[in-house]
Amino acid sequence: MKGKFISLEGGEGSGKSTAIDFIQRWLESHKVPFIMTREPGGTPFSEEIRQLVLSSREEKVNDTAELLLMFAARAQHVAEKIKPAIDQGTWVVSDRFIDSSYVYQGDARGGSTQILDQLTEWAVGDYHPDATLLLDVPVDVGQQRVLQRKYQDRLDKESSLFHQKVRDGFLERARLNPHRIRIIDASLPLEDVIAQIEKQLEALVQSWSGGI
Amino acid sequence: MKGKFISLEGGEGSGKSTAIDFIQRWLESHKVPFIMTREPGGTPFSEEIRQLVLSSREEKVNDTAELLLMFAARAQHVAEKIKPAIDQGTWVVSDRFIDSSYVYQGDARGGSTQILDQLTEWAVGDYHPDATLLLDVPVDVGQQRVLQRKYQDRLDKESSLFHQKVRDGFLERARLNPHRIRIIDASLPLEDVIAQIEKQLEALVQSWSGGI
Repeated sequence: MKGKFISLEGGEGSGKSTAIDFIQRWLESHKVPFIMTREPGGTPFSEEIRQLVLSSREEKVNDTAELLLMFAARAQHVAEKIKPAIDQGTWVVSDRFIDSSYVYQGDARGGSTQILDQLTEWAVGDYHPDATLLLDVPVDVGQQRVLQRKYQDRLDKESSLFHQKVRDGFLERARLNPHRIRIIDASLPLEDVIAQIEKQLEALVQSWSGGI
Repeated sequence: MKGKFISLEGGEGSGKSTAIDFIQRWLESHKVPFIMTREPGGTPFSEEIRQLVLSSREEKVNDTAELLLMFAARAQHVAEKIKPAIDQGTWVVSDRFIDSSYVYQGDARGGSTQILDQLTEWAVGDYHPDATLLLDVPVDVGQQRVLQRKYQDRLDKESSLFHQKVRDGFLERARLNPHRIRIIDASLPLEDVIAQIEKQLEALVQSWSGGI
């Protein structure tokens, strides 16, 4: 039986790292075979592409170039890591996946949905997430969390307007894909966020197999 | 008036470096404002992508990932270097351009022409070469020249069959684009190759403007 594929999405400072730690512990305690991965990245080669696209630089990065780099990393990630895992029955949990491209390169940067659809078809094929947890948090809350970090990447440094487009974009994706994307209110206290994630994971497992 | 755009194409060991040195001297002596550039690469960011895609590595590089990386580098190259130069009347001479993608990622690796056409539209737009010089040499001659080099990249190390597909692919591109692509017989002695290039440059300049 194929493994399940769960992606985690959310803007800067939405608490994805904490959520991922919890999901990892939850899967371990339920004896589910799984791998954790992330985008852009996930394989050594894709991580090199991630490094390239996220590092701050003086040269203006052309929007089409950024978009194609993201999908190059994704094509490699799907072909060399996600597909082999799922095909052998291992679950995959990815910190960001396709929705981030639609939101960051599409809604926020103005990339066309038609181009994103086409690139997705080439790079992802049939390996779309079975479920996506969207950590939603108001932009000012997310920004405050990010400012406390030592290192901020090229996307962290974008304007509040950019991050507002990101949030709105994610919520619109959730509205269009209500069955796949589950919204988690990540502005609540940590234990409440974790409780929402746990509830969603239990509901997903229930819907997929009547229990693990 | 817009600058002219000339690309130079050819398989491994076809003598592109020597040809480029000559073209550079020829343009200088004719007082043409020009820049020399190359693909993949041409800007600092695109050169980083070149480094990434050409370095030998253990991880298998997915064909779609390679294709998207090449076009990411190209989108950046066109937007940040080629377009600005041409728009201000500077000529551009590029060591490799779009035909290499059709031949290496298309004919040799099996990438679809439809995908290449689509990526070209996004990355290149209207900035296609006005003329292309194709240095054609039999595969065994080219291979012998490459073997004398100290450093061989990931593509140099491909099989003879791969390089035969590259040569056939270039010749087919020339057959389909007879007006743009001029074939140079690069198996001849150096002075004869140079003479052919000079003749082509003079004919091109004549056809474009009735002289420089």
